[in-house]
Amino acid sequence: MTVALADLNRLDLADFTAALGATFELAPWVAATAHARRPFAAVTDLHAAMMAAVQSAPREAQLAFLRNHPDLAGKAARAGAVTAESRSEQASAGLDALSDEEFARFHRLNDAYRAKFGFPFVICVRRHGRDSILHQFERRLQHDAAAELAAALQEIFYITRLRLAAAVTGEGMPKIAGRLSTHVLDTHAGRPAAGVGIELYELAGGQAHRIVRTATNDDGRTDRPLIDGRPLPIGRYELRFALGDHFRSRGVHVDDPPFLDIVPLRFSIAEPEGHYHVPLLCTPWSYSTYRGS
Amino acid sequence: MTVALADLNRLDLADFTAALGATFELAPWVAATAHARRPFAAVTDLHAAMMAAVQSAPREAQLAFLRNHPDLAGKAARAGAVTAESRSEQASAGLDALSDEEFARFHRLNDAYRAKFGFPFVICVRRHGRDSILHQFERRLQHDAAAELAAALQEIFYITRLRLAAAVTGEGMPKIAGRLSTHVLDTHAGRPAAGVGIELYELAGGQAHRIVRTATNDDGRTDRPLIDGRPLPIGRYELRFALGDHFRSRGVHVDDPPFLDIVPLRFSIAEPEGHYHVPLLCTPWSYSTYRGS
Amino acid sequence: MTVALADLNRLDLADFTAALGATFELAPWVAATAHARRPFAAVTDLHAAMMAAVQSAPREAQLAFLRNHPDLAGKAARAGAVTAESRSEQASAGLDALSDEEFARFHRLNDAYRAKFGFPFVICVRRHGRDSILHQFERRLQHDAAAELAAALQEIFYITRLRLAAAVTGEGMPKIAGRLSTHVLDTHAGRPAAGVGIELYELAGGQAHRIVRTATNDDGRTDRPLIDGRPLPIGRYELRFALGDHFRSRGVHVDDPPFLDIVPLRFSIAEPEGHYHVPLLCTPWSYSTYRGS
Amino acid sequence: MTVALADLNRLDLADFTAALGATFELAPWVAATAHARRPFAAVTDLHAAMMAAVQSAPREAQLAFLRNHPDLAGKAARAGAVTAESRSEQASAGLDALSDEEFARFHRLNDAYRAKFGFPFVICVRRHGRDSILHQFERRLQHDAAAELAAALQEIFYITRLRLAAAVTGEGMPKIAGRLSTHVLDTHAGRPAAGVGIELYELAGGQAHRIVRTATNDDGRTDRPLIDGRPLPIGRYELRFALGDHFRSRGVHVDDPPFLDIVPLRFSIAEPEGHYHVPLLCTPWSYSTYRGS
Repeated sequence: MTVALADLNRLDLADFTAALGATFELAPWVAATAHARRPFAAVTDLHAAMMAAVQSAPREAQLAFLRNHPDLAGKAARAGAVTAESRSEQASAGLDALSDEEFARFHRLNDAYRAKFGFPFVICVRRHGRDSILHQFERRLQHDAAAELAAALQEIFYITRLRLAAAVTGEGMPKIAGRLSTHVLDTHAGRPAAGVGIELYELAGGQAHRIVRTATNDDGRTDRPLIDGRPLPIGRYELRFALGDHFRSRGVHVDDPPFLDIVPLRFSIAEPEGHYHVPLLCTPWSYSTYRGS
Repeated sequence: MTVALADLNRLDLADFTAALGATFELAPWVAATAHARRPFAAVTDLHAAMMAAVQSAPREAQLAFLRNHPDLAGKAARAGAVTAESRSEQASAGLDALSDEEFARFHRLNDAYRAKFGFPFVICVRRHGRDSILHQFERRLQHDAAAELAAALQEIFYITRLRLAAAVTGEGMPKIAGRLSTHVLDTHAGRPAAGVGIELYELAGGQAHRIVRTATNDDGRTDRPLIDGRPLPIGRYELRFALGDHFRSRGVHVDDPPFLDIVPLRFSIAEPEGHYHVPLLCTPWSYSTYRGS
Repeated sequence: MTVALADLNRLDLADFTAALGATFELAPWVAATAHARRPFAAVTDLHAAMMAAVQSAPREAQLAFLRNHPDLAGKAARAGAVTAESRSEQASAGLDALSDEEFARFHRLNDAYRAKFGFPFVICVRRHGRDSILHQFERRLQHDAAAELAAALQEIFYITRLRLAAAVTGEGMPKIAGRLSTHVLDTHAGRPAAGVGIELYELAGGQAHRIVRTATNDDGRTDRPLIDGRPLPIGRYELRFALGDHFRSRGVHVDDPPFLDIVPLRFSIAEPEGHYHVPLLCTPWSYSTYRGS
Repeated sequence: MTVALADLNRLDLADFTAALGATFELAPWVAATAHARRPFAAVTDLHAAMMAAVQSAPREAQLAFLRNHPDLAGKAARAGAVTAESRSEQASAGLDALSDEEFARFHRLNDAYRAKFGFPFVICVRRHGRDSILHQFERRLQHDAAAELAAALQEIFYITRLRLAAAVTGEGMPKIAGRLSTHVLDTHAGRPAAGVGIELYELAGGQAHRIVRTATNDDGRTDRPLIDGRPLPIGRYELRFALGDHFRSRGVHVDDPPFLDIVPLRFSIAEPEGHYHVPLLCTPWSYSTYRGS
């Protein structure tokens, strides 16, 4: 259910707040404050106005707002007592399906964080893989209060940017999506490698989770990007290319077993809204990769 | 306990046969036949003469000779009732430490093989990783009798070449050893990458077994080859390079997490006596590898 | 002055022949023969019909048609006594500006060719650089009569395909254009190299003729392809990239003089209608190129 | 005619000075001063003692010493009125065979330099190509007096190090030689490329001067380094590899003309005593190079 920016610009205070009230967790006052700044020429302007409302609020109001957020992978989430937005976001990183041990680890981190800062750990989970969330949790526990308040509000910026992009349409949409793509070039034949099997794995918790399985088309690319239309979760990944099958099917004589069979490219994503092009240039005896564009 | 070729050339039949009798499993007649061809200018000539004795023996003698070999990973090996040479060879591929399930699989293959060909499956286990032994077992079960007799005698050639190289010293030693080496070149800095952590894994049975852990020296190489002085077991391998640590220690600014951290190079070895040079050319954003020389 | 295929399909014989008469050099009968095959669904169908008229004509008519073509770089061209189409085509390969020595060489080749085959040497000059024309001339002089007649008609196919593509618009245009493009990726920085000076040279007659001078944009590409919209002349080329300036402007410390300064990539084009993507992956200490897609 | 360090250590002042007097141009007092510091454990120690004599001499003596040097490519050299050492060194960079125009340019630079600094321009010509000498000449003309005195004495260090290395044998010889090598790896075949024609050109004065012509051996290397046993002259170079012939002779199908035929690698040398390894990894459709080790 989305609303057009042009329509939003015409709404009165009550309707405007009703339309955007869920964007900032349990804080309809944010939308109400932004209402006075209408009309907005761009969705990014609307978002900036809402963030400005938070940034200029008294410190106590900011803390109260942060306190309204549920614990990450917390009991409330397990029990279903959180907003629909929070539930869906936590599920995206698999936080709704933790083992008891993992649940206990989050529980300890949540307790330590609340004890130190007085509000729950807030992070834009759609921008992180599970390992990255734990890494950020432990890193931010080292912050002093001022640095961590700034860090938490930066995460609020990311969370609400995504929520707003899902709720509003119109001019000046914020950039929220990254893109992961690949390309296989057979430099033995001097042309794109067609029909090469490709698997993409997310490496987390010491395991490899396959998230995409596809093959190259005649141009050596995949028909659609490996990931797009959403933030790329920060984390470690591995692409695996079935090169042995490719050269066998071309009738190229190779050793048994072939020097190169399944070729893994392992890399990390650090910019969720960036474009990662990770191509493979290959012969039966060599390969190269690089972050391309 | 080795004997010099020059001394061998002077031995009478009994001593000659005693010295070399263990080379061809329970077949002292092979050494006895070769005795008449003394003197040998090279150890490879001695080996050729012994193989010629086998090759020119009547088919029944060849089969009887093959039948003298123990089953691979068989009950006799478990019970210790095989020659010292066979025991040590089977241990080199981990065949002395199979799970019950693996033992049962070998048992079934042994039975099928014996039923089809009338002699046990013979393979030079020092030239193969465990996956390759199973692969060869299943592949050779498809042979007809003539092709398989030839295949078995070729393995006898490899086995006895290794035994002879261990037992005799002198001119014209056979080439029995391969070499696996690497080199890390930092093309961001334009010089060899020193101090890069490297691990070598053998990939077998769906698992990665670490067999070497080392680091590069100032020339970007390892102080000694990753493997040398022995046949390189046919199989799949993975080199892992700690590139993230390398660029961090050089003070190069990289993303968090770094685009490249642990870089795996996965390749297969098909020539146990070959030289495999598998270098890594790298920047924080790209890398290449190839079979070098 | 172009005509629409739809309009052509409605013309009577006289107008149709008038509209297309110049396509096949001094042979309006070709258009006249094709007129009977209207309507044409595609421009390629029209071209096929015209070529079929030539292919099915008696051998004497084919030879007479070929004899209507002017000598390449011949006296008639110098004197202006050739069709406008021929003059413009010959100029495209610089054949209108030969030195006296080159003119004499073409003269000798023309004489030898006519003496052997009885018609002038015909070649689609827009698909060849000057060296390639001479190479083809000498190669085709070795043909027997049948092979050379076929070769000459194949060139007629290429020449008239280009003329028709310039004269007619509509559905099913023939593919007549190739494309040459490049891309500079700075794998030291992990991003496209912007502002890199690029020169493209055609290598012919022992000299390098600069035909393009440009620079990369923010995506490391050139704003438009180095060559497009026309056949890529068969021949040798050299791209030169001002890498030294690039790394200097990025503030990267390099040697004096820098290991890499002007980087030349020398390659040949063999498919005039193909896409040649010739990228450069570079650091201050290394570079790669390949035929990409 | 060389002398052993051990013998030098035993010579009296007169003989020692006679033996080494020509090392420092027309300045036998340098050797005389160093005589008191005998015995020398290494040739580098002897050189350090001689340089220390120069460095600790009064400024007027240093200037007088520098004034004893002939102009680079000057009238005295043309007339033969310089020491044998100077004549041979200047010839090494082709300074004995300048055109009248080049001679005039050096003449102007010499005059401007003398007018500014009061002594002739001194440079270790064996460490520079002709372009580099002119580049240094123009660069050093911008120095102030103190910086240029230091620069001139640094060149004296290089000149006399070479002279001493040619005159004395023994322990602790100075490192005066660089090395330029290459290696061609055919990653289409997965092995070294044998028999590949290689030419090395020095690029200077807008021209390419061929200085080496060779071919790869079975290991893809040249039987001896392209340059070794002497300083590598600072300058620009181009290696050219006959790749087209290589793949043709292997029977690999390539286009006509082949995408890659003569492959040029253009690079600069900045460290005359360094090791430059400039390999080529290639297929018919791609290649890479890097500064290796």
